[in-house]
Amino acid sequence: MESLTLYESVAERVRRTIQHGTFAPGRRIPSVRRLSSELGVSITTVLEAYGLLEREGWIEARPQSGYYVRSRSECPEVEARERRPSCKPADVGVEDRVLRLITDSRNPSLVQLGSAHPPADLLPTARLTRLMSAAARRLGPAAAAYDVPPGCVPLRVQIARRLIGAGCTVTPDEVVTTNGCLEALNLAFRAITRPGDTVAIESPTYFGLLHALQLQGLRVLEIPTHPRSGISVDALRFAIEQNPDLKACLVMSNYNNPLGSLMPDESKRALVELLTEHDIPLIEDDIYGDLCFSAERPRVAKAYDRKDLVILTSSVSKDLSPGFRVGWVVSARFQREIVRLKTAFNIATATLPQYAVADFLENGGYDAHLRRARRVYAAHVEAMSRAVGRYFPPQTRMTRPQGGFVLWVELPGRVDSLQLYEHARAAGISLAPGPIFSARQNRYRNFIRLNCAHWSDAIERAVETLGRLVSQSS
Amino acid sequence: MESLTLYESVAERVRRTIQHGTFAPGRRIPSVRRLSSELGVSITTVLEAYGLLEREGWIEARPQSGYYVRSRSECPEVEARERRPSCKPADVGVEDRVLRLITDSRNPSLVQLGSAHPPADLLPTARLTRLMSAAARRLGPAAAAYDVPPGCVPLRVQIARRLIGAGCTVTPDEVVTTNGCLEALNLAFRAITRPGDTVAIESPTYFGLLHALQLQGLRVLEIPTHPRSGISVDALRFAIEQNPDLKACLVMSNYNNPLGSLMPDESKRALVELLTEHDIPLIEDDIYGDLCFSAERPRVAKAYDRKDLVILTSSVSKDLSPGFRVGWVVSARFQREIVRLKTAFNIATATLPQYAVADFLENGGYDAHLRRARRVYAAHVEAMSRAVGRYFPPQTRMTRPQGGFVLWVELPGRVDSLQLYEHARAAGISLAPGPIFSARQNRYRNFIRLNCAHWSDAIERAVETLGRLVSQSS
Repeated sequence: MESLTLYESVAERVRRTIQHGTFAPGRRIPSVRRLSSELGVSITTVLEAYGLLEREGWIEARPQSGYYVRSRSECPEVEARERRPSCKPADVGVEDRVLRLITDSRNPSLVQLGSAHPPADLLPTARLTRLMSAAARRLGPAAAAYDVPPGCVPLRVQIARRLIGAGCTVTPDEVVTTNGCLEALNLAFRAITRPGDTVAIESPTYFGLLHALQLQGLRVLEIPTHPRSGISVDALRFAIEQNPDLKACLVMSNYNNPLGSLMPDESKRALVELLTEHDIPLIEDDIYGDLCFSAERPRVAKAYDRKDLVILTSSVSKDLSPGFRVGWVVSARFQREIVRLKTAFNIATATLPQYAVADFLENGGYDAHLRRARRVYAAHVEAMSRAVGRYFPPQTRMTRPQGGFVLWVELPGRVDSLQLYEHARAAGISLAPGPIFSARQNRYRNFIRLNCAHWSDAIERAVETLGRLVSQSS
Repeated sequence: MESLTLYESVAERVRRTIQHGTFAPGRRIPSVRRLSSELGVSITTVLEAYGLLEREGWIEARPQSGYYVRSRSECPEVEARERRPSCKPADVGVEDRVLRLITDSRNPSLVQLGSAHPPADLLPTARLTRLMSAAARRLGPAAAAYDVPPGCVPLRVQIARRLIGAGCTVTPDEVVTTNGCLEALNLAFRAITRPGDTVAIESPTYFGLLHALQLQGLRVLEIPTHPRSGISVDALRFAIEQNPDLKACLVMSNYNNPLGSLMPDESKRALVELLTEHDIPLIEDDIYGDLCFSAERPRVAKAYDRKDLVILTSSVSKDLSPGFRVGWVVSARFQREIVRLKTAFNIATATLPQYAVADFLENGGYDAHLRRARRVYAAHVEAMSRAVGRYFPPQTRMTRPQGGFVLWVELPGRVDSLQLYEHARAAGISLAPGPIFSARQNRYRNFIRLNCAHWSDAIERAVETLGRLVSQSS
């Protein structure tokens, strides 16, 4: 950290008393004269410091009265701004910093606000491991055999059953199990597109999806989204008019990563109808769908699929175990091609983890597990939101997710999140910088995504540090 | 099965007495007159039957003496014939029958001579499952976490150690773990080629490799092989001269599937030198390398790699567990790109199976396990070879593998192995028909690959049935 000028030091001191609640919102802070004498600095220095804090939004001057802490119970919400999609497809370039972020996710010396991993203490790992041993005993020789695609029958039965709760009736025959959700997405892309094709995606979009799109040689059209309700169907309609050759559309309909947005049912229906009208397949990534903060999980867009055009993908990586690598893709129309591609890529998904997950879903207490996880994530997202509201400068905005466990934070316009990422990392904190959530250069430059899956005092202190770093660079 | 004419029935009867050893090689069989009276058929019918058996090579007529069982202790060896590769790259088309073969591998009502799967009773499944539980307890939270590429450190250490025994010194940093060997191959192809590029492969080649080549949009040049010593380096040299744009070469240097061929060390050295001279990467699939019938496993071609141009792939699917899906790819030069591709395709390989395999390799008795497996496979390949020699028509030829557990059988030229496959399947037997081992239409039409991993009376009876089906269609 560079050394601060005198007035910056004074501003930092006052900023911290506000952050720590010594001066609550609405309260008057010491007069210029009093602080000058208390700290033994000149009147001019205090005036400069208060001017900085005013510009940052921490305080406001009231005529004839003095300086007051600005009232704000929490950060303002991120606003939707763009209404029209860019009409030119873009190539996807994935940056080294994504790989670094992923590598960092295993670094125990970092406070993990970067990757969206669930916390170990919330995962039923011991139970799943016991179920795996039991499955090995029960299966006998089949435990060691290739579980050839479409994959583990009991798991496919459970997935079909669970989907009823998402408003969707499919048969186990339509399900193909995969080595996680990203593999499911890659197989779906590959089944319906060719390199050079264009796919419509939400903006912002999870960087792993951009990775997969790049791997498949696809171009993207980024469609504007609303931070609460997800992809703009109107904007997508406009994009289709401009790009009649669009080969697919990809959305995270429920609790989009990084927005946490939830498409209302009417919007899901409209999306499927629009795409059906143009015979464009929809790939729907529902990986966060079960992690709603409400008692009942939302429907999937596939619930409105009348023409078998929606390919649904998901996995257990967010709610049961990332390390088990159990995911799936659901589509009657493309099932055969997906099986062919899966066979050609890696023959099969590991056998025992699939059986353990099937048993857990059937009678391992998945519903009780989900109730607990939903409660915990809702509380952690709330705690993170409060901390950001407290420690980040007042021009900060953030999302109000109703599910999942990530928070999308808009920093003051001058903040460069790529620089912030470096500074944070040097301070022992990982975070996901905004630009990795878009295929376009420099988009979301002043945004960051924070993982809220965990919460602790150490994390609160890390958010405080982040807030200071943000203030310093804004 | 179609009903036989009278003389065919008589021939079949005699054929079976020979197959069962009632009439040993060199012995005289009943005279025409005697058989005619014994069976109550005309002299002409017996003469027709003996003529058929003569043409099939079962018996021979000796002037002034009668008919004798032809002497043959075993089938002749498959011979190398082609010397020059075709100079035009071919597109790879993978047929539905490969998917059917893979699906059939889980069909318990079939005698499994098709897919090359190891027998369950030879795999240390219970021990691996216990090691997986132990690893879960030991790892704690990390047991559920993504094992991000390059993957499980203890496993990479064991792989590097084991490679010393194959004449190859690599560091664990050069190893990337994968979801099986085919994924390793796909990542290797993807790292060094682009769709439309041409790759030199052995002919015949394992159909899974052809699948992967097709998936990556690659064209192939099929290089002639010798059934004992593998790819012809001279033919490859010629192919490179004709195709200077060749982007990679792929070989199974040790116990090629389906040939069982083993490249001599000098040939491995010459291959690597030739490719190095032209700066063409070699992808070496060593999946059968540990399953030698000798006490010591052969070297890998990578042992002769001075310029870091050999990418080695393998897995535990043939010796420990297909269902665990644990494989790897070794390359210093392309490690970073492979990590990037693996991350973009499916993020990670399942965590616990990797740790269990690492523990098994370190102190689970892998060497003792290998000694037993080698003994068993050598015995089973021998038993299968004898049975083929006994029940198949005498024009049959076969390989003499010194490792692995498949046998490549050349049937009389008139036999169509695709038809044989259908007839065998109807009789409850799976086998791998020759044409799926080449990208070219109709190659190896009269060849089949038999899985010799298992052996039992039921299998001997199945081979007898196969022999009869072959005789009927030859």
